[in-house]
Amino acid sequence: MITRFDKIAVDLPRPKHPSPNAAAAVQELLGGKFGEMSTLMNYTFQSFNFRGRNQMRPFYDLIANIAAEEFGHIEAVSYTINLLLTGSTKRGTDPAATPLADALDARNSYHFIASGQQALPVDSQGNPWNGSYVFSSGNLKLDLLHNFFLECGARANKIRVYEMVDDDTSRAMLGYLLVRGGVHIVAYAKALEKLTGVDMGKLLPIPDISNKRFPEARKNEDRGLHRILYRFSPDDYRKITEIWNGPHPEDGSELIVQDGPPEGFDPPDLDPEPQLTSPLGPDIDSEMFKDIAKKLFG
Amino acid sequence: MITRFDKIAVDLPRPKHPSPNAAAAVQELLGGKFGEMSTLMNYTFQSFNFRGRNQMRPFYDLIANIAAEEFGHIEAVSYTINLLLTGSTKRGTDPAATPLADALDARNSYHFIASGQQALPVDSQGNPWNGSYVFSSGNLKLDLLHNFFLECGARANKIRVYEMVDDDTSRAMLGYLLVRGGVHIVAYAKALEKLTGVDMGKLLPIPDISNKRFPEARKNEDRGLHRILYRFSPDDYRKITEIWNGPHPEDGSELIVQDGPPEGFDPPDLDPEPQLTSPLGPDIDSEMFKDIAKKLFG
Amino acid sequence: MITRFDKIAVDLPRPKHPSPNAAAAVQELLGGKFGEMSTLMNYTFQSFNFRGRNQMRPFYDLIANIAAEEFGHIEAVSYTINLLLTGSTKRGTDPAATPLADALDARNSYHFIASGQQALPVDSQGNPWNGSYVFSSGNLKLDLLHNFFLECGARANKIRVYEMVDDDTSRAMLGYLLVRGGVHIVAYAKALEKLTGVDMGKLLPIPDISNKRFPEARKNEDRGLHRILYRFSPDDYRKITEIWNGPHPEDGSELIVQDGPPEGFDPPDLDPEPQLTSPLGPDIDSEMFKDIAKKLFG
Amino acid sequence: MITRFDKIAVDLPRPKHPSPNAAAAVQELLGGKFGEMSTLMNYTFQSFNFRGRNQMRPFYDLIANIAAEEFGHIEAVSYTINLLLTGSTKRGTDPAATPLADALDARNSYHFIASGQQALPVDSQGNPWNGSYVFSSGNLKLDLLHNFFLECGARANKIRVYEMVDDDTSRAMLGYLLVRGGVHIVAYAKALEKLTGVDMGKLLPIPDISNKRFPEARKNEDRGLHRILYRFSPDDYRKITEIWNGPHPEDGSELIVQDGPPEGFDPPDLDPEPQLTSPLGPDIDSEMFKDIAKKLFG
Amino acid sequence: MITRFDKIAVDLPRPKHPSPNAAAAVQELLGGKFGEMSTLMNYTFQSFNFRGRNQMRPFYDLIANIAAEEFGHIEAVSYTINLLLTGSTKRGTDPAATPLADALDARNSYHFIASGQQALPVDSQGNPWNGSYVFSSGNLKLDLLHNFFLECGARANKIRVYEMVDDDTSRAMLGYLLVRGGVHIVAYAKALEKLTGVDMGKLLPIPDISNKRFPEARKNEDRGLHRILYRFSPDDYRKITEIWNGPHPEDGSELIVQDGPPEGFDPPDLDPEPQLTSPLGPDIDSEMFKDIAKKLFG
Amino acid sequence: MITRFDKIAVDLPRPKHPSPNAAAAVQELLGGKFGEMSTLMNYTFQSFNFRGRNQMRPFYDLIANIAAEEFGHIEAVSYTINLLLTGSTKRGTDPAATPLADALDARNSYHFIASGQQALPVDSQGNPWNGSYVFSSGNLKLDLLHNFFLECGARANKIRVYEMVDDDTSRAMLGYLLVRGGVHIVAYAKALEKLTGVDMGKLLPIPDISNKRFPEARKNEDRGLHRILYRFSPDDYRKITEIWNGPHPEDGSELIVQDGPPEGFDPPDLDPEPQLTSPLGPDIDSEMFKDIAKKLFG
Repeated sequence: MITRFDKIAVDLPRPKHPSPNAAAAVQELLGGKFGEMSTLMNYTFQSFNFRGRNQMRPFYDLIANIAAEEFGHIEAVSYTINLLLTGSTKRGTDPAATPLADALDARNSYHFIASGQQALPVDSQGNPWNGSYVFSSGNLKLDLLHNFFLECGARANKIRVYEMVDDDTSRAMLGYLLVRGGVHIVAYAKALEKLTGVDMGKLLPIPDISNKRFPEARKNEDRGLHRILYRFSPDDYRKITEIWNGPHPEDGSELIVQDGPPEGFDPPDLDPEPQLTSPLGPDIDSEMFKDIAKKLFG
Repeated sequence: MITRFDKIAVDLPRPKHPSPNAAAAVQELLGGKFGEMSTLMNYTFQSFNFRGRNQMRPFYDLIANIAAEEFGHIEAVSYTINLLLTGSTKRGTDPAATPLADALDARNSYHFIASGQQALPVDSQGNPWNGSYVFSSGNLKLDLLHNFFLECGARANKIRVYEMVDDDTSRAMLGYLLVRGGVHIVAYAKALEKLTGVDMGKLLPIPDISNKRFPEARKNEDRGLHRILYRFSPDDYRKITEIWNGPHPEDGSELIVQDGPPEGFDPPDLDPEPQLTSPLGPDIDSEMFKDIAKKLFG
Repeated sequence: MITRFDKIAVDLPRPKHPSPNAAAAVQELLGGKFGEMSTLMNYTFQSFNFRGRNQMRPFYDLIANIAAEEFGHIEAVSYTINLLLTGSTKRGTDPAATPLADALDARNSYHFIASGQQALPVDSQGNPWNGSYVFSSGNLKLDLLHNFFLECGARANKIRVYEMVDDDTSRAMLGYLLVRGGVHIVAYAKALEKLTGVDMGKLLPIPDISNKRFPEARKNEDRGLHRILYRFSPDDYRKITEIWNGPHPEDGSELIVQDGPPEGFDPPDLDPEPQLTSPLGPDIDSEMFKDIAKKLFG
Repeated sequence: MITRFDKIAVDLPRPKHPSPNAAAAVQELLGGKFGEMSTLMNYTFQSFNFRGRNQMRPFYDLIANIAAEEFGHIEAVSYTINLLLTGSTKRGTDPAATPLADALDARNSYHFIASGQQALPVDSQGNPWNGSYVFSSGNLKLDLLHNFFLECGARANKIRVYEMVDDDTSRAMLGYLLVRGGVHIVAYAKALEKLTGVDMGKLLPIPDISNKRFPEARKNEDRGLHRILYRFSPDDYRKITEIWNGPHPEDGSELIVQDGPPEGFDPPDLDPEPQLTSPLGPDIDSEMFKDIAKKLFG
Repeated sequence: MITRFDKIAVDLPRPKHPSPNAAAAVQELLGGKFGEMSTLMNYTFQSFNFRGRNQMRPFYDLIANIAAEEFGHIEAVSYTINLLLTGSTKRGTDPAATPLADALDARNSYHFIASGQQALPVDSQGNPWNGSYVFSSGNLKLDLLHNFFLECGARANKIRVYEMVDDDTSRAMLGYLLVRGGVHIVAYAKALEKLTGVDMGKLLPIPDISNKRFPEARKNEDRGLHRILYRFSPDDYRKITEIWNGPHPEDGSELIVQDGPPEGFDPPDLDPEPQLTSPLGPDIDSEMFKDIAKKLFG
Repeated sequence: MITRFDKIAVDLPRPKHPSPNAAAAVQELLGGKFGEMSTLMNYTFQSFNFRGRNQMRPFYDLIANIAAEEFGHIEAVSYTINLLLTGSTKRGTDPAATPLADALDARNSYHFIASGQQALPVDSQGNPWNGSYVFSSGNLKLDLLHNFFLECGARANKIRVYEMVDDDTSRAMLGYLLVRGGVHIVAYAKALEKLTGVDMGKLLPIPDISNKRFPEARKNEDRGLHRILYRFSPDDYRKITEIWNGPHPEDGSELIVQDGPPEGFDPPDLDPEPQLTSPLGPDIDSEMFKDIAKKLFG
């Protein structure tokens, strides 16, 4: 089970301008084959499914714990998309004014028809995330190799979306996730090393471009975020220390486990979009609602 | 963000006999259109996406909080599937003995080829869960109506899977989820009532068969589990009390909010299946691994 | 637009025994790539889309008119499936009696979980029909060639399902649809002949096995059903006579257009399945419903 | 079975300018999850599948009858798309002139490659409609709740597409379908009320923006179109009067059943697009075709 | 089995300008329902699956041999896409310079995120090619009819993409494939004629626009390429001469079989795109790689 | 381009008994995510797409050359399926005898309805192979890591199918492909080693069960097949020797490149299945066909 708290992992500034096509591109990092839905669900299912875990506890703990962090990543990407879409059409309650005219050429029409300018579990072409992206073979070595590859593929996608967008919101999110995804790459490399003796860390970085070339990522690495594996549990997953230790394979800094999740930041307020009846339309029965609202919110 | 702890919501007995086709049927409740992946992801995305939440806080809190409970539901269903599959083929390390012969006629071949007799995010026909199952219109009234319908549809599926399987594991899980899903039905009914004044509770039960006809569910209702909305957060989602209050629409009992998740139960140990190299195959480099294991586990 | 009347095209006897796997096989003829959903939707869209129809009226009339007949074919196949599923599980209102136990090994689990032992727009593997099966190029010659091929492919599927099942219901439906599908094959062959001068009828039968080898089809041919093109409209589609004329390419009999649809037969009653809460469950509020029912049905 | 007649439900003016991206957006209302293909097919399958219909005739009649109206809705949306695409590329028979150059940036490339600037059963992102969008549980209360939700979701989509496009064709279609879809919302609300006693009409409008804010819809409501349920059958579905009666929940006007479909309008002529060889290309064997045409059309 | 040699079938000039949206359109000819993946895989599977081939050898040889040519067609289309994408974003190794900014509005985002400006097995909307596009009924007459239709549909798509793009690369590829696809149309027409006696060639061209209207295709026909069926095997498929003979149905020229594949052309060099880390990123461990490279390439 | 020759890579004995469910399981190795369609298409597209290949020739040669071998693997798996299905229903030309009755319970109904007891590009649940399974990032290190992982995943699937089936045909195929797939695993490990210096071979075997435990594979290893990389080209791909050299990582034997493909074996004759009209039905116009056949085959 989980408990949830209303903080997001990265401080997201508002973009200077809305950008529907940037939002469409960022969707790849949410609902694409290598998006955060995939990392979240791969590790979640592998943790539910882990056979013989008592004998292999550190590996179980690692996978289960990283799964928990990934929830915060689908959250951060979703808020980025939501901020990029906020205000992207003309606000108002008169539909005849064609308030969504600008949306006609946007790459992802679902953002304006299916959702109220909001994130959806689809990729950058609007194709839905699906369960065939989850790999859970039960063989530990193979699952770890998969996870190592998945994180490297996810990193390649982040790099390319980074190169497409330059708004502050996306770049803040990307600077954070490049570093945290980098932690997961190293974690699975270390796990494979423990299991097989092969020094997987020497393969890094994959693709062969360092996080240090991304200013927003470098800032996070300067704060040491690439060295920390958070333990996302009050009492469990303590054996991750058996895997997450020793020097970082890229810069040799000491790896450390930090108990508890990062403190996080308040999620950004998302403004109403009345033209999309989000959250309410102009004809909510106002008298009745006033009474109710008084009770509920008063 | 979330934190995770290693308890599952329901105490799952081991089935007397493995049953691959029961496992295949139960998959509908995990990866089907009305499975727990759908409830989890619908509410998760609606919570990330909630516009104007400061004005509508009790509704946001309700959706975000129920999302957190649903994680425990995909977990409970996954463990059920895993227990039903455990031992369903002949254990051993000699592949030439055709240990998976019995799997040849099983309805879900992915359980034996893609996974190591483990749960996957697919439905009862093996079709993957996909993101088109997520509805997030941004309009509060419509999203609540959707959620109310989704829970009723999910209940219908649970009822029918209940009628297909009679092993203790599935029935324990179903007895629990019928009641907890019932709580979510009432919660969305109450939310719609607050918003519109319509007494949605009078529609219940949908389908028109009471939980009390299911012995394992009745047992949970006798313990009052249908009256409790757990608050799955250390500090947030406190305004669910504004919606979850008053009498239960079916039996008139008083609704109560309980702070914190249920205590839960230890997840069942899942035995290794060496014929599936899960978690290890017979040729792991044993000398090297012994050294490592000593360090890791010693 | 259409009007609808409650007759089905073929007299469907009840099967001696329910047969879930026969129902699963027959689904291919409903929701498969070559099922009746495909013929219905291909011709429907081609008729909506027909450019320059004033100059090419007989071809438009032919396609639009056959589309109308196809509605009756999805209906006939659906009723066949419904009859094969009726009574296939143990009736009753006690879920704890595991009334759907027998469904556990059925090939199509959707029949028992998603539907109440009822037809769905999916194929024999449970994969949903989808719009990529619709071909509408706008080029008349190519669309006609497509339609000719589609009907031949549909005929191959019908032949093979015929060879899988021997219940009276399926065979009655198949004996009818083999003949009516045969009419559509000839119609598109004639249309191509009018347009190009090529004697497509000499290609028949495709596959190279005559309808006369199927006793239930031969019976319908003996009644002349293979010679008749019904005009499914009170006033329109009159120019089909310009295409549907001359000798039948296989037996030389004279082709005739008959105004109006066939008279048809009463659709079979479909028994309730209370264990599936279809149409009602045991806990419908009986007092209230009695009052309503009196008003509605009294 | 059905009969078909060549009238469309709404008088569609030609748009002042073709608009491929408007056509792409309108596709959501045809082949999207909440498009008219979904309403048509949901009710069609529910009507084929209705168990125990003799006891529940008014509900059966309602669903079967609304299904028949929906055919006219896929037709009206398809013609809208076709008109928006007509003339959207440079007409001519010389392919080397790159007549489709403007199509290169259009959002839906299928309109120009797969079809001849024509409607297809796909959504606004080009994803095909599929049968998983059909819900047919067999439980009457649940199916009615689904239908009520489906119509509300469809209404939200229509509202948003309305806000994206301002051409006369789309707006005429939308003004009509908002009202007719509104009739279906009320019809399912009334049906649920009859079955359960809950006043579902008080939930309306969903989303909470009245049809009266849409000038083209208001015009149709002024003509009373929101009060009429057409009976789309010569002799059947007479018991819809048991459900469709009393006051309209939004404006209190009296609900009435009108026998027979609306009179309708001539479908618009769709011009040939020779650059797309639609319906003919420049090399049809003209001598032969002249002879044939004389016979066929002369 | 096959052997492979590094020549492509058509001499591809470089485009004057990169064009991501032209590349997106050309994808339809690679991964669309009627793309070269479909022709390749249909004939490949039909050849593996051919029952009774000893009795029907010329037909088997024809299908198996055309399959081999189709490999060269997916190759030619892929290189066209690759050339159209080469240089379409700003080259460099600094991600912070937003080198992919121009890609934000491109229709196919996968080209920039999933691939390094490279071809993928998807269609013009980015939907993946899938195995449901393969038809292999086992009935020879029906399979040949399918193949004849498939090639005509593929021709329609090529014509339309030709009309969308005017760069030299695409047009060279299209001029070649229109002619070679035309050969396959005639080949399947001849095969049907041998099997049934029907003169299918008289249906041509489908769509009814001659290859001679396409300057780049006419050039290839002037060189006689429409008359030649290459035998893509050192020793097999000799009986294609039994089918590929007599006059060409459109211009009456003599059909000839040529032993061996065409000589072909060197595949174009594809420039690195360092901003996409393709093939290497800036941080490959250069000291180590220098040593290795000396060994590998020195 | 390719040339093709009619030999298959492995000598396939006929199975003692047909086995539709074994055929259904083996489909995973053809059309599954980790099936041979995936290996074929991944390497084929990566070879078309390889940027900067002149500088990285040995890697290009390796990928392009392995792609060529994979064609022989989809062929070998397809023939295995075809042999398992041959004779699996009652032969004859009378459809009324229900010759396909036994197929009603088979797991893959497409084998009997869509195909004539023949292989299709679908997986073990009947879901079609699709292009989203192709990974082609353009970054060499990442693509090689993907290929290494893909081959390991494919190996896991082969192991598990091996454990499900015990017929001689499947086992002969599997014994061969385990070894040849093993060659590809080593090849990509070596390539990564050349590029990065990491000794990937020490990770093997993945899963951790040696090929030597599979009698049919061990037989092939005893013949040295695991040491040989065939060069599938008359003149190209010569630089594979720069990567394929040194000791085998599992048994230390010397790796060797052999010019040209293996000699191969005659493909098995596939008997006609007249009940499926494969290849002909009983009503082929025999007089006409006799004449033609004399010309064609005489």
